[in-house]
Amino acid sequence: MTMPRLVEVRKNVLKANDLVARDLRERFRAAGVFVVSLVSSPGSGKTAFLEKILTVLRPQCRVAALVGDLATENDALRLARSQAPVKQIITGTLCHLEAAMVQNALAGWDLNQLDLLFVENVGNLVCPSSYDLGENLRLVLMSVTEGEDKPLKYPTIFNSADVAILTKVDLAQVVEFNEEAALANIQAVRPAMQVFKVSARNDQGVSEFADYLRSRLATLRATAIA
Amino acid sequence: MTMPRLVEVRKNVLKANDLVARDLRERFRAAGVFVVSLVSSPGSGKTAFLEKILTVLRPQCRVAALVGDLATENDALRLARSQAPVKQIITGTLCHLEAAMVQNALAGWDLNQLDLLFVENVGNLVCPSSYDLGENLRLVLMSVTEGEDKPLKYPTIFNSADVAILTKVDLAQVVEFNEEAALANIQAVRPAMQVFKVSARNDQGVSEFADYLRSRLATLRATAIA
Repeated sequence: MTMPRLVEVRKNVLKANDLVARDLRERFRAAGVFVVSLVSSPGSGKTAFLEKILTVLRPQCRVAALVGDLATENDALRLARSQAPVKQIITGTLCHLEAAMVQNALAGWDLNQLDLLFVENVGNLVCPSSYDLGENLRLVLMSVTEGEDKPLKYPTIFNSADVAILTKVDLAQVVEFNEEAALANIQAVRPAMQVFKVSARNDQGVSEFADYLRSRLATLRATAIA
Repeated sequence: MTMPRLVEVRKNVLKANDLVARDLRERFRAAGVFVVSLVSSPGSGKTAFLEKILTVLRPQCRVAALVGDLATENDALRLARSQAPVKQIITGTLCHLEAAMVQNALAGWDLNQLDLLFVENVGNLVCPSSYDLGENLRLVLMSVTEGEDKPLKYPTIFNSADVAILTKVDLAQVVEFNEEAALANIQAVRPAMQVFKVSARNDQGVSEFADYLRSRLATLRATAIA
C-alpha cells in the first residue's frame, strides 16, 4: 500500500459524503425542490446577495436557506430578515459543509412545501469544492475587491461550480477592477461558464438573477412532469 | 477506539507537522532569521502588502519570501518586483501550507544570509490555523471590504495569529467599514491583540509596520546575543 494514509481515509470520507449527497438529491427530486449552493471567499458577499435574492423571490416562491459558518448565528439572523425559513449550521472547526450536515439541518422541514432551497457554504475557496451537497446548481461568488486572478489561483472550485457571480460590482471602478481580465480568467478555467454581475448594495443584477432561478425552477418542474 | 478514524489520522499529520516545524524553528533561531507568516482570505491583499513591505525593508535588511498557492506563479512574480529572493510553493489541491513544504522550498537558500523571511500562506481563513510553520510571528490580514464580523466567524485563525492587519483601509469610507466594531470583534476573540491599519495603494501604515518588524528583528538579535 503506497497511498498515504490520510489520502486513503479522505477518499473514504468523500465516498461516504457522495452516498449521502445521492440520497439528498433523490429527496430533492421527489419533492420538486430546486437546490442552489453558494461558495466563495469569506467576505465576498454571499449573505448580502442571498438576503436580496430571498427577499425578491419570496412573494412568488416558497424559499428557504441553510447557512454554514464555523461560529456565530449572525448569517441566519441576517437572512431571516427576508422572512424566509432559515437554519444556521455551525461547523466548529470544519472548513466546509458536508452532505450529512445538510441532511441533519433539514430534519423537521417538509421539502414538499419548498420551491427553492439555498445552501450557503462556509467562506472558503478550496475545501468546499470536494463535497457534493446534492444541489442542482452550485454558484461560485467572487467580489470585485478580491482581484481578477482568483479563478486561476483557485481553479478547482471555479471548475466544480456551474455559474459564477461577480459581486460588489458597485465598487468596480473605485478598486480599478479589470472586468475583461476577470472574465477571461473564468473562461480559461471553465470555458462557457455563465457569469452574472450583481451588487447587493444598489440591487444591480438581483432581479435578473432571480428571473434566472425562476426559469431553472420552471424547467425542473416541466422535466419532472414530462 | 471511539475516536473517528479521520480525526485520528489528522492528529498524526499535525504531530508530524509539529516535528518539522520544531526543526525549522531551531534552524531559524540558529541563523538569527526572523520569520513572519501571513494568513487571510483569498483577495484580502496579502501579496500587495507583502510587496510593499519587502520593497521598504530591502535597502537595510536581507529579506526573502515564500508564497503558497494552489496554482500559478503569479504571486512570486509580483513579489519578485521588490528584487527580494522569492519562491512559489504550489500546493495543488491542498488548502494550506505545511512545515515540510516550507522546508523543501528553503533547499538551496542559506538562512545565514537572511534577516527576515516571509511566508505567505494559501488564501484561507480556516485550515492554515492548524499548521505551525516554525514562524516567529503570524499575521492575520483582513480587508475592510470583507466586513467587520470575520473575527467572530473565523475565531480559530484570529486566535492562532499574533498580530492583525486591517488592509485596504483607503476603501474604508466607500464600503462604510465600521472600524470600531471590527476592532471590538478582534479583541473579543483575542484580547489585547495588536492591530495595524494599512493600505498598499496609498502606503498608509506601511513604514510603521516595517519599523515594527525591524524592532522585532532587533529584539531577536539582542536576545540571541544575551
